[in-house]
Amino acid sequence: MPVHLSAPNPADLFPVAGVRLGIAEAGVRKANRKDLTVVLLDEGASVSGVFTQNRFCAAPVQICRDHLGLGLGIRAMLINTGNANAGTGDDGLMRARSTCIALARHLNIAPEQILPFSTGVIMEPLPTDRIEAGLTAALADAQENHWARAAEAIMTTDTVPKAFSAQVQLGGATVSITGISKGAGMIRPNMATMLGFMATDANIDQALMAQLAKDLADASFNRVTIDGDTSTNDSFVVIASNKAAHAPITSFDSEDGRALKAAMLSVAQKLAQAIVRDGEGATKFITIRVEGGQTGEECRKVAYAIAHSPLVKTAFFASDPNLGRILAAVGYAGIDDLDQTLIDLYLDDVHVAVKGGRNPAYREEDGQRVMKQSEITVRVVLGRGAVADTVWTCDLSHDYVTINADYRS
Amino acid sequence: MPVHLSAPNPADLFPVAGVRLGIAEAGVRKANRKDLTVVLLDEGASVSGVFTQNRFCAAPVQICRDHLGLGLGIRAMLINTGNANAGTGDDGLMRARSTCIALARHLNIAPEQILPFSTGVIMEPLPTDRIEAGLTAALADAQENHWARAAEAIMTTDTVPKAFSAQVQLGGATVSITGISKGAGMIRPNMATMLGFMATDANIDQALMAQLAKDLADASFNRVTIDGDTSTNDSFVVIASNKAAHAPITSFDSEDGRALKAAMLSVAQKLAQAIVRDGEGATKFITIRVEGGQTGEECRKVAYAIAHSPLVKTAFFASDPNLGRILAAVGYAGIDDLDQTLIDLYLDDVHVAVKGGRNPAYREEDGQRVMKQSEITVRVVLGRGAVADTVWTCDLSHDYVTINADYRS
Repeated sequence: MPVHLSAPNPADLFPVAGVRLGIAEAGVRKANRKDLTVVLLDEGASVSGVFTQNRFCAAPVQICRDHLGLGLGIRAMLINTGNANAGTGDDGLMRARSTCIALARHLNIAPEQILPFSTGVIMEPLPTDRIEAGLTAALADAQENHWARAAEAIMTTDTVPKAFSAQVQLGGATVSITGISKGAGMIRPNMATMLGFMATDANIDQALMAQLAKDLADASFNRVTIDGDTSTNDSFVVIASNKAAHAPITSFDSEDGRALKAAMLSVAQKLAQAIVRDGEGATKFITIRVEGGQTGEECRKVAYAIAHSPLVKTAFFASDPNLGRILAAVGYAGIDDLDQTLIDLYLDDVHVAVKGGRNPAYREEDGQRVMKQSEITVRVVLGRGAVADTVWTCDLSHDYVTINADYRS
Repeated sequence: MPVHLSAPNPADLFPVAGVRLGIAEAGVRKANRKDLTVVLLDEGASVSGVFTQNRFCAAPVQICRDHLGLGLGIRAMLINTGNANAGTGDDGLMRARSTCIALARHLNIAPEQILPFSTGVIMEPLPTDRIEAGLTAALADAQENHWARAAEAIMTTDTVPKAFSAQVQLGGATVSITGISKGAGMIRPNMATMLGFMATDANIDQALMAQLAKDLADASFNRVTIDGDTSTNDSFVVIASNKAAHAPITSFDSEDGRALKAAMLSVAQKLAQAIVRDGEGATKFITIRVEGGQTGEECRKVAYAIAHSPLVKTAFFASDPNLGRILAAVGYAGIDDLDQTLIDLYLDDVHVAVKGGRNPAYREEDGQRVMKQSEITVRVVLGRGAVADTVWTCDLSHDYVTINADYRS
């Protein structure tokens, strides 16, 4: 059961002018599943993306990087589930290109104006024939108000579709922002998540897009982890259709720029946190905040050591305030000159450890009370400096093992 | 069920002259459990140890380092289960010292000649009164042939006691080597394991002991992982009682030195591998060998990325040849200039991936056959150089979650 996350109401998702989404059942891996999505962009959209840093990155990720680099103007995205087209060598590249060529023919554009995305099982050949056969139906389905359908069609082990919207006023115009994401396991994004797509009708200079995508990912998808497994296919794409009636944003330091970026970040964080809330087998949503560090990097080292510890994660699953496991993870996080006698630990409002030892005022029942909640904040104070950072994660349950032991069967 | 590991037959464990072990039930955490062990060394033993690199190291680890540094000659070790005396601050140091003082009084030696070890729950005060009350019974029990009893008395979540022996001929004398270890979770030793003790009656110059302990640990305990959680209490101690009738070993480059070290390493590796075979919830013993690296460090990075991936570990549990998960872990192991088109992957004798893609000759049923075995070797060939390294790990099962969700209850 996802933690405080329910399927979006399609009526709550704002359409984005100039962006249409179409869905089909192509039978990529199994029949009778929405598994193919096309996203059609009117001419003139600003587009950028960030992608996995996994050296074994999938064929579509390599093609996306190539096509974005060419700068011909992106006009469509093609997304399939059921098959990740990763670990597939040169044949995988050819197959990804082949699907772009087929869609380009339908749209009368260049194949290099298309970004392909695949997610699913690794190391099996992409069934290009079934994908290409499904394009007609997907294109016929394309509408601006199909974000909720697309959120559903990109799911794999997700149990709930993930889509969020926001609106913001820019120079008298109402600008819409809508995004979707998917992912529930193999999640420890490094630059971007499994799949995340976000569009706005705001006018944003293409020159700002690469940095915008990176900034948004760094403060959202790059701060969540489920199992520490960085996927081969992580991709996060930001689209500005440039349809709204306001003066173009040429800097995010302007008042309008700040308002737009804040609204986009809030959607990106909801999309990223939704992946954790729907984490494979998750029963709890955990915020890990590390304060008092000398650098953001060392705060993140500590936060990820806690977030990835199977012992900490199983203790959360059991609602067991076995908090020594958190201190142990702090200790092995890799800060060589860490002084354990400076460290304080809090569980929500409960002050558990003082200067590296048990707080004399700490009572087991207080820890127990917090551990039973479905949302918990762990706060570690390092006592070394003034920097803080936050990551979000979930617990490790029997269902995680069940889901991943059964995924392909 | 441990993987190919059964309790030692006491008759197979060679006593080590000058080393006596005594056991008691002190009721440290629960009643009616062997939870206290004293190891008594005759005067003149050479002793060294390596300890956890966790910055949150436990009080007894700090005391061990201090006492070994003083060089007064170690005469006894005091080991309790049920309580790790970690995350306990200054009070924990005082309590660990107090138990050393109590044992020193019994033996009429200095407290600094004693090494204390604790293992069990973190962040709870060590019950010194019960430990000190148990000393009389433990001392009365001390005998040279009590290695099997000691192996049992140091267990926590272990299901099987771990003890191994070897003999080697040195200059006409028969030299014995016997060791015990414990540990099943919170296992990713960094310099040493949870608890490992090894003794020989060989004559070894004290000046060689520190490097010997480090070399043995590096090729045994520092090559195993269960859950990637480096404990606060990892300790590995090597003892030479210097009782055997052969010329003292003054270098491990001599013929006798090489023979002795090889025999000691074989015992250390069995002790370390036994911890993995008895890993919490383990159903499979996995050897991960990475070849063709430029350095040992990069081979270990790749091997540990595979060994720590929850997705790889659950696939082993499920006997599912979902081998793309292994390639994904190779990809995120942190080798920045890794070229995926050079990588080959083998599962025992089955050649799964060629140059980063699926081997055309690979058949799913061959992968399935190997995955069903209880001992499996994963071999990754990086194609970057001539260096190789190996780590040992286990799978991730439902029982791991059950054990760690229930540990304290």
